[in-house]
Amino acid sequence: MIIIGEKLNTSIQKTMEAVQNRDEEALIALIRAQEEAGADYQDVNAAVGGDELAGMQWLAGLVLKHSHGGIMLDSPSTEVIEDVIKKVGERPVIVNSVTLSERLSLLPAIFEAGAAVVGLPMDGGGIPRTAEGRKKNAERLVDKITAAGIPPEKIFIDVLAESAAVADENLMIALSSIPLINAIDPGIKTVCGVSNVSFGLPGRVNINCAFLSAAVAAGLQSAILDITSPAVKTALLSSLAVVGRDEYCLNYIAHMRGMKG
Amino acid sequence: MIIIGEKLNTSIQKTMEAVQNRDEEALIALIRAQEEAGADYQDVNAAVGGDELAGMQWLAGLVLKHSHGGIMLDSPSTEVIEDVIKKVGERPVIVNSVTLSERLSLLPAIFEAGAAVVGLPMDGGGIPRTAEGRKKNAERLVDKITAAGIPPEKIFIDVLAESAAVADENLMIALSSIPLINAIDPGIKTVCGVSNVSFGLPGRVNINCAFLSAAVAAGLQSAILDITSPAVKTALLSSLAVVGRDEYCLNYIAHMRGMKG
Repeated sequence: MIIIGEKLNTSIQKTMEAVQNRDEEALIALIRAQEEAGADYQDVNAAVGGDELAGMQWLAGLVLKHSHGGIMLDSPSTEVIEDVIKKVGERPVIVNSVTLSERLSLLPAIFEAGAAVVGLPMDGGGIPRTAEGRKKNAERLVDKITAAGIPPEKIFIDVLAESAAVADENLMIALSSIPLINAIDPGIKTVCGVSNVSFGLPGRVNINCAFLSAAVAAGLQSAILDITSPAVKTALLSSLAVVGRDEYCLNYIAHMRGMKG
Repeated sequence: MIIIGEKLNTSIQKTMEAVQNRDEEALIALIRAQEEAGADYQDVNAAVGGDELAGMQWLAGLVLKHSHGGIMLDSPSTEVIEDVIKKVGERPVIVNSVTLSERLSLLPAIFEAGAAVVGLPMDGGGIPRTAEGRKKNAERLVDKITAAGIPPEKIFIDVLAESAAVADENLMIALSSIPLINAIDPGIKTVCGVSNVSFGLPGRVNINCAFLSAAVAAGLQSAILDITSPAVKTALLSSLAVVGRDEYCLNYIAHMRGMKG
């Protein structure tokens, strides 16, 4: 399971304030907390609340300096991605995102950088309302991405988990699309933003954990989530133990010992 | 989702002691707590720790007197079932269990009583190690049960969720068997004992909740569990909201309001 920490995102009020104030201490604490909790990558998104390019450059610099893992460059702007991707050196990088109708012009720069990419299986018509529709879009997207030289192993397909509060069927569509998209190619990985699923609901972490457990059982291979939340981390490790992706449940058992210690 | 409360089982130390001491107060409190928490049925099992027939008669009497819901008669003994099933009158009853090689002689008494039955999809050879094997056994069992006059609507098939600690593949086999067994007939319901899945592991409720969320997403239609556990109840309601089995998430939202109130 590839874990992507979600906290360095200016759509989170506290992070936005810390970025606006260039509060290094607060952000370094977040970066270290995410890495210690097990984040393989740190998502960096500065699209809200100020000069995105400057914010992204500054945040990415902090991640490179104060963590050892990978970085996910998360931006709606091709200019921002094209600038920052040249500055991240040898670190593992994932660009989030391209769609069938947006930001495909980034593919050559992603290929050049040896980076990975998240593809959203949607086109100008929006998000398909069936798992089969998402799978078909994912196939078209994988074709376009591999045609740019990027191998399947560097492709993440987002299963587009929306809020359960918006439409009852939202999450079963996303969950059902996981095995369909995994079946496209053994190299590609399914991914999604777990916290989206509870937008607008009370006790959000409960919904996040229930979805995560179902998604892990459906075969989700990576997730953008709040790994610093003890509830989320425990749900993740429990789910991996349940589905046999934790040999002899050893990671889960070690985690529980740590929680008590 | 049909909820079966698991607490009236003498394999739980406290329950065994309360049954041995004929501690009415303690057991009435358990019965009421399960019903208030949302149990549709109360599982009654007195197989451990004393005279099973007398224990079962006494426990079943308390359930009939102090709750309004159904009763699950859970015993390895055909004699005990045959005795108690005649005494439960008009209440909804589920007999737990028959297998392809055990207790099939109960079917006429179950039919006579208008009761439902849990079938374990196993034969003398034990528990199949594949979902497909469990489905095939379930089909054979459904044939035998319906041949005795019991309609599919009164058949529960247990998907045989064993402990994650015993073999890494145990729970993916059980989870994968849920949609296969649901597909046998629209009337039959899948069921399992949720607490089994964490036997031998620390922090058992975490594993129980992760499995429950995955099982609800896979289509599980009823469960024997500790509905008096706030964590389990929250995971159940969260899971039903995630998979769209809670219109507009209204039950989940009401539950969260109650937790705060």
